[in-house]
Amino acid sequence: MNRLTALLKDKERLHNIVSNDDTPMGKAFDLTVMSAIVVSLLLAFVESSLHVDEFTMDDLMSKSLTKVGWLKLGLTVLEYLLTLFFTVEYVLRVYCEPRRKDYYLSFFGIVDFLATFPQLLSIFVPQLKYLAIMRSFRLIRIFRVLKLFTFINEGYLLLESIKRSMNKLIVYFLFITVLVVVLGTLMFMVEGGYPGTSFRSIPDSIYWAIVTLTTVGYGDITPITVAGRVISSMIMILGYTIIAVPTGIVSATMIDETKKKGKNGRCPRCNQKTDLNANYCKNCGERL
Amino acid sequence: MNRLTALLKDKERLHNIVSNDDTPMGKAFDLTVMSAIVVSLLLAFVESSLHVDEFTMDDLMSKSLTKVGWLKLGLTVLEYLLTLFFTVEYVLRVYCEPRRKDYYLSFFGIVDFLATFPQLLSIFVPQLKYLAIMRSFRLIRIFRVLKLFTFINEGYLLLESIKRSMNKLIVYFLFITVLVVVLGTLMFMVEGGYPGTSFRSIPDSIYWAIVTLTTVGYGDITPITVAGRVISSMIMILGYTIIAVPTGIVSATMIDETKKKGKNGRCPRCNQKTDLNANYCKNCGERL
Amino acid sequence: MNRLTALLKDKERLHNIVSNDDTPMGKAFDLTVMSAIVVSLLLAFVESSLHVDEFTMDDLMSKSLTKVGWLKLGLTVLEYLLTLFFTVEYVLRVYCEPRRKDYYLSFFGIVDFLATFPQLLSIFVPQLKYLAIMRSFRLIRIFRVLKLFTFINEGYLLLESIKRSMNKLIVYFLFITVLVVVLGTLMFMVEGGYPGTSFRSIPDSIYWAIVTLTTVGYGDITPITVAGRVISSMIMILGYTIIAVPTGIVSATMIDETKKKGKNGRCPRCNQKTDLNANYCKNCGERL
Amino acid sequence: MNRLTALLKDKERLHNIVSNDDTPMGKAFDLTVMSAIVVSLLLAFVESSLHVDEFTMDDLMSKSLTKVGWLKLGLTVLEYLLTLFFTVEYVLRVYCEPRRKDYYLSFFGIVDFLATFPQLLSIFVPQLKYLAIMRSFRLIRIFRVLKLFTFINEGYLLLESIKRSMNKLIVYFLFITVLVVVLGTLMFMVEGGYPGTSFRSIPDSIYWAIVTLTTVGYGDITPITVAGRVISSMIMILGYTIIAVPTGIVSATMIDETKKKGKNGRCPRCNQKTDLNANYCKNCGERL
Repeated sequence: MNRLTALLKDKERLHNIVSNDDTPMGKAFDLTVMSAIVVSLLLAFVESSLHVDEFTMDDLMSKSLTKVGWLKLGLTVLEYLLTLFFTVEYVLRVYCEPRRKDYYLSFFGIVDFLATFPQLLSIFVPQLKYLAIMRSFRLIRIFRVLKLFTFINEGYLLLESIKRSMNKLIVYFLFITVLVVVLGTLMFMVEGGYPGTSFRSIPDSIYWAIVTLTTVGYGDITPITVAGRVISSMIMILGYTIIAVPTGIVSATMIDETKKKGKNGRCPRCNQKTDLNANYCKNCGERL
Repeated sequence: MNRLTALLKDKERLHNIVSNDDTPMGKAFDLTVMSAIVVSLLLAFVESSLHVDEFTMDDLMSKSLTKVGWLKLGLTVLEYLLTLFFTVEYVLRVYCEPRRKDYYLSFFGIVDFLATFPQLLSIFVPQLKYLAIMRSFRLIRIFRVLKLFTFINEGYLLLESIKRSMNKLIVYFLFITVLVVVLGTLMFMVEGGYPGTSFRSIPDSIYWAIVTLTTVGYGDITPITVAGRVISSMIMILGYTIIAVPTGIVSATMIDETKKKGKNGRCPRCNQKTDLNANYCKNCGERL
Repeated sequence: MNRLTALLKDKERLHNIVSNDDTPMGKAFDLTVMSAIVVSLLLAFVESSLHVDEFTMDDLMSKSLTKVGWLKLGLTVLEYLLTLFFTVEYVLRVYCEPRRKDYYLSFFGIVDFLATFPQLLSIFVPQLKYLAIMRSFRLIRIFRVLKLFTFINEGYLLLESIKRSMNKLIVYFLFITVLVVVLGTLMFMVEGGYPGTSFRSIPDSIYWAIVTLTTVGYGDITPITVAGRVISSMIMILGYTIIAVPTGIVSATMIDETKKKGKNGRCPRCNQKTDLNANYCKNCGERL
Repeated sequence: MNRLTALLKDKERLHNIVSNDDTPMGKAFDLTVMSAIVVSLLLAFVESSLHVDEFTMDDLMSKSLTKVGWLKLGLTVLEYLLTLFFTVEYVLRVYCEPRRKDYYLSFFGIVDFLATFPQLLSIFVPQLKYLAIMRSFRLIRIFRVLKLFTFINEGYLLLESIKRSMNKLIVYFLFITVLVVVLGTLMFMVEGGYPGTSFRSIPDSIYWAIVTLTTVGYGDITPITVAGRVISSMIMILGYTIIAVPTGIVSATMIDETKKKGKNGRCPRCNQKTDLNANYCKNCGERL
């Protein structure tokens, strides 16, 4: 107990354990967190598969527990323990963080918060149970545990490519929205009145248009009239070209980015490292 | 009433309200139009979902109205009001437009007309009810209300890319048409006679070929014989490459366009703004 | 009759009608051929949709014709007439062609032959009925009737792109073949023994692997076990990247081709027309 | 028998037969191996289609064989013979290989081993029957029999492109994993409680998210509530862009690789052959 108190007082040592994996203690801590994340996900999988509700006070008050009751109790206790664990971990992380304010607003600071507190809250306010979905955010933390920072750098390149294409993509999505509403309405008029049709309303038909244009094609709604099949054939073929556009946009930007940064962020002429936003190599003046 | 008459006489002030959103009145007008568009779309969704016909004179003549009758009456009245609103808006827009002739043939002039008059017409000529689909065009007007002109500029770039690829795309579509007819006929011969087949005619088989080649794959028509499965497997794998072609075409053109215009329509060497159709930078002579 | 004989003797005038559309007669001839192609296709569509066999001698011998019998007679007579028409057209085309040998082996010479003779043959040898599929080739002739030669030039560019990527594509297809056999066998082992499975044999599972990898996804065969779903999820995500490869190959080649030829087959520097296989502009020496 | 013994002693001659196809004997050997591979695959297809278990000792002990029993016996004997053949071939190949150690660890050395020994092992240890999947690896050997080495060179280029994009792809896959877990959980919460839903658990919903994001779209799990359809529509449209990313990555790298190597691995300026890893042409100094 004394050693724990001592540890809690020595913020630097604590920080080394919680956020650094060079020490054996740090590695053990990382392993524990990762295991807890995996267990918490498996727990959610099992709970949803078994269709058991959470264990409530009513169950506890009932005199004898059935087999399912015991299972529910076990799952609920495990979940409470995990929530406690993640809460303690979050508090520790904040406590020993030297630049606390930067951490709150950093990417992982927000992820840690969203992955922890909503569930803690839902224990006290059962109505907020739907917040349990935040649990999925814990997965993102695996990026940190695996120290995937170099990969995250690559991710920034991807993100930058998508950001730079954003204007084009927004117009494109607005265009797609208008298009699917027009096509959906058209198909509802062609197929809607036919007996046995699956185009039962305009929203249904719009959903069909999206499923078709994106080439997902579930087959839950399909045209059965000749006119409907002719129109959807045209939609598919023309749509294939339309839907090829975002691929073109992202490819074009990505090729541009890749060229700009050179191979591995180095100048293609003198092979010196280049700054991320540089337009010219600072060593030889080559246009990047 | 006098103020309305005065407003109607002051074309310039009216134009400021109808087509300009710098004034509070203009903003309020834009908001009203946008709400009307959204309400008109929701109305179409509800009508199609409830499978209620439009309220007719016969309904009005019947002595007592059922619940559904009242709903029909409400929806019909709302629709008439919206049609009236859009008609008045269109008339106002034309009335106060200084360059009226340019407006008629401008992109939004045509969209406004198509989104308004067909429905007005269908009130007097019920046989033209199928024109109601034109209602979907109102969505396009959201682009204007949201002042998405800069986005529309991006859209022009996309459109230009598609236009420049047009020749290639037309040959491609003709080729695809011939291909699906040949493949559809082939599959009908292989699968057609088999009991329990879903390849019931050549047009059905052509529809299947399109659904398969575009990788939509509804699953409403699927091969069940060994020969049919072998042939469709080959169609899928080979077709995947064929269908990759439009992506390639659009990507190639888009990369070309992007390169030509430089980053953000600026010269890649001197960073000066370039004209849209310029082949050389007018500042430094760099080939764009 | 005399005028017809005179026309048949004047090969040059006949050639003008059959292969040239500058004269009114040539235009009328083109229109007739195109109508015949469309009618012949519609005929095939109707026949396959009605599930009526061809009219045979037995039907003719039976004393009274039923309604379906008359329809069959009509369709069969129309088909014989069309076959006759296309045969006469082909003979005329050969007869008045000045460079007859070049025509036989030209692209359209072969298409004309395949679209005409197999069906003529199948009249005399009913066992060859499956040759009727050749009828679909008639569609290709629409390219000629529409004088789509400039488009066909574009098509050659596409074809060249595909040809130049051929080596890469062949390795790719062999790789895909091996991959789907391995994945199909794996899935059969995982899903095969499960009651209610749709993976009933290894060939079925290979067919499933192809349907999944190409993202067609009919849904006629789907995994139902947990292990099967985990494996197919991995197949889909990894497969998406693998299947992205031909798009990459074709795009890369097409971008290369486009760059080489310059905009519209012109030199990017001096805007002079370039030869199809030129590596340098013959006017200014720019590397293409 | 003496000739066989002599042949076995003459390692060089044996090597010429087994690994060289310039001699008539070598060609015959290649043909035999290839036939054996095809027969072994067809055997697996037939066995899986007929749902017959392997012939066991119990069957042999039973006094009279049924028709199916004879078939089982035939298939089993044929399989044992093929396993024997491939084992002998492998032993021969190792025996006459001059650089035996290099062979063990070469690509084809490993493929040969995996395609042969697991099945031999499964004869003696029936529990290892699932190893039979290794049989599929035999297909890879067709690459060698067809002497597709030049194609394999092309394959190396593809592989290099994929390798160079690896870092980006790994981040991408991690991102997709997190995304499908979040989306799957979300959809389970929206659709899960609805009667007649096919979203029966979170793992099921994650499987659905993968099937949808990759645009495979089997249709075995589809949303039926309005909220579910709205969310999945958004997933499809946004997902289409996300899933376009690997295509962009692979395309960008492939275009880069193609440009670097020049046309056919030649310098784009002086047309001399370039080394595979060269950054500059060794003839004219052009940057590749």
